[in-house]
Amino acid sequence: MSIINKAAAIGGGVIGAGWVARLLLNGIDVSIFDPDPEATRKVGEVMKGARRAYKQMLPGGLPKEGKLTFAKTIAEAVADADFIQESVPERLDLKHRVLAEIDAHAPANAIVGSSTSGIKPTDMQVAMKKHPERLVVGHPFNPVYLLPLVEIVGGEQTFPEAIEVAKELYASIGMKPVVVRKEIEAFVGDRLLEAAWREALWLVKDGICTVEELDDIMRYSFGLRWAQMGMFQVYRVAGGEAGMRHFMAQFGPCLKWAWTKLMDVPEFNDELVDLIATQSDEQAHGLSIRELEKIRDDNLVAIMEALSKQNKGKGWGAGALHKDYTRQLAKLAAKKASAKVTAKAEAAKPVKKAAKPAKAAKPAKAVKVEKPKKKSGKKKG
Amino acid sequence: MSIINKAAAIGGGVIGAGWVARLLLNGIDVSIFDPDPEATRKVGEVMKGARRAYKQMLPGGLPKEGKLTFAKTIAEAVADADFIQESVPERLDLKHRVLAEIDAHAPANAIVGSSTSGIKPTDMQVAMKKHPERLVVGHPFNPVYLLPLVEIVGGEQTFPEAIEVAKELYASIGMKPVVVRKEIEAFVGDRLLEAAWREALWLVKDGICTVEELDDIMRYSFGLRWAQMGMFQVYRVAGGEAGMRHFMAQFGPCLKWAWTKLMDVPEFNDELVDLIATQSDEQAHGLSIRELEKIRDDNLVAIMEALSKQNKGKGWGAGALHKDYTRQLAKLAAKKASAKVTAKAEAAKPVKKAAKPAKAAKPAKAVKVEKPKKKSGKKKG
Repeated sequence: MSIINKAAAIGGGVIGAGWVARLLLNGIDVSIFDPDPEATRKVGEVMKGARRAYKQMLPGGLPKEGKLTFAKTIAEAVADADFIQESVPERLDLKHRVLAEIDAHAPANAIVGSSTSGIKPTDMQVAMKKHPERLVVGHPFNPVYLLPLVEIVGGEQTFPEAIEVAKELYASIGMKPVVVRKEIEAFVGDRLLEAAWREALWLVKDGICTVEELDDIMRYSFGLRWAQMGMFQVYRVAGGEAGMRHFMAQFGPCLKWAWTKLMDVPEFNDELVDLIATQSDEQAHGLSIRELEKIRDDNLVAIMEALSKQNKGKGWGAGALHKDYTRQLAKLAAKKASAKVTAKAEAAKPVKKAAKPAKAAKPAKAVKVEKPKKKSGKKKG
Repeated sequence: MSIINKAAAIGGGVIGAGWVARLLLNGIDVSIFDPDPEATRKVGEVMKGARRAYKQMLPGGLPKEGKLTFAKTIAEAVADADFIQESVPERLDLKHRVLAEIDAHAPANAIVGSSTSGIKPTDMQVAMKKHPERLVVGHPFNPVYLLPLVEIVGGEQTFPEAIEVAKELYASIGMKPVVVRKEIEAFVGDRLLEAAWREALWLVKDGICTVEELDDIMRYSFGLRWAQMGMFQVYRVAGGEAGMRHFMAQFGPCLKWAWTKLMDVPEFNDELVDLIATQSDEQAHGLSIRELEKIRDDNLVAIMEALSKQNKGKGWGAGALHKDYTRQLAKLAAKKASAKVTAKAEAAKPVKKAAKPAKAAKPAKAVKVEKPKKKSGKKKG
């Protein structure tokens, strides 16, 4: 069961709407602010996809969805939220404006998570005049309603307690929080993605392969490995009986061979965009984005489900988590069913609260940082 | 059914033994040469793991295994092979010696594949005095018996026909051949891996995360994505309704932010090896390499199986291939069963050939390059 009572989402793009979907499907009410006149439709599309995916995970039925409200201002959206997730475009000035407003109007005990994939929390929280100590980066991966990872990063002013509460909040909606130990730009996931992406652009630009060939090279080889073990453990196993030291000794020296071109950045011009966009069109083989999205979601659910049955039935990696998550959602769905029965039995006296017995029964846990002992100020300089 | 009649494996390390396992489990006889006195035991260990994995894929039973012979010399190993795979350590001088000997003794029509993960075929085939035109790089991924990808790369002297035949040979043992369009060192797969690996070493060295945290960040997020769609298609879908151009426009500029440290190579010293080896030990949580290997194999089979049921039952990516491959192996296994019945029925007159009806029935297809029209010499200079 989630420990979030009421959530606010600021920004409803692919990532923001993904958060909204995950929260609503966990039965949590969400208030969203997004100035885009198309926001309602766009969030609706993502919700449709997320509902579809969750139905595959939960053939027994979904929990009662939380209520979605479109707020007219940030102030209105965050007014009574205990968890706020910011997912606006990656511009520091915009982040500052939005975070300042969130901070001014949110309850003091609310945790503020930022979906930024690269900006340091220290650079963002300077805009929060009241409670900068409750800002964490909570960097998710698309599709947010399915992929469990959330990188948590604290800034110089962030309280350790806020990180602890954030971990619990994210975990309570089925996610895998990993706290990044030191604050660096782009954190860990996007550093790795950026490295691979740069090299990929070179390979396509230089005509070594097309985007489809590169994608095939990934998904028929190391992509399958990385769905279940990361690169270090994969190499540990590859080292065979001799283990990791052997592997390192064997492959360490190649690091000095200047194979990759990562020292340079390919020129990002129209020609490169054209080349990649055209090849990407060909690769789609006529499938629309929506169709590809469904295929992707079905595949992700199927992979996680397959992994949930491994390791002598205990589940492995994302599969073990998936097992717990679907079990938690199924319980929530069962509560909805029993709540309905109760509601029917007590039909004579209509009690509105009966629709949400789960929430009423359990107090929010997010109050841990409600009274921060002291503002620590800048830790490092 | 494979079009390989008789294979030779030169080198029986993790990769060489992986090839042996894939070939034998496809019912193909293999002659192996490896001077390591431990070779028999090591290959036996890999075979054990491979058999275990294939039993999961084929609950109805495995095809009759090919016969494995340990040859005393390279000459003996390759004497009657129509497909030879070289998997010796990555040193050019060694590759030269081994390929020269393979070339001197192999039948003229045999295809020679090299497992090198980085050396250009042009640089290797100079050592082949008789038929350099039949050398291709056939770069696989560990575990070779399970992961389908093989990168095929031709050198300046390689005949296009040899590449075509190599594609067919590899595909006939359930693999996904992708031909790399231009010859570069490290090809495509290892360029991407190298880029990610370098960045990963920095992240651990700088204490941003441990190897376990980095691995978790991979396998709970983009690893799940890349098991089924490569990075370009993933981003196409992430671009949403606006598609690839939108995505490129949005994320292109970040390329100029010097986030990744790939311009530098971390110093590869004992301290770094110690740090990583120690963290890797911790990450294993007491599981031995053998146990981890089993878990990895089970996971890979489960993922491919899960993907084989997607896309309206047609299968997707490695899953679609897995479906075809297991079907092909099941057919081969059924032939073994019917051969047994025939053998029993004809018990009165023992006919040795009855054990291998499949091979006798179908002539080898690998003869296409038997009579190369002309040696083209160096194409480029």
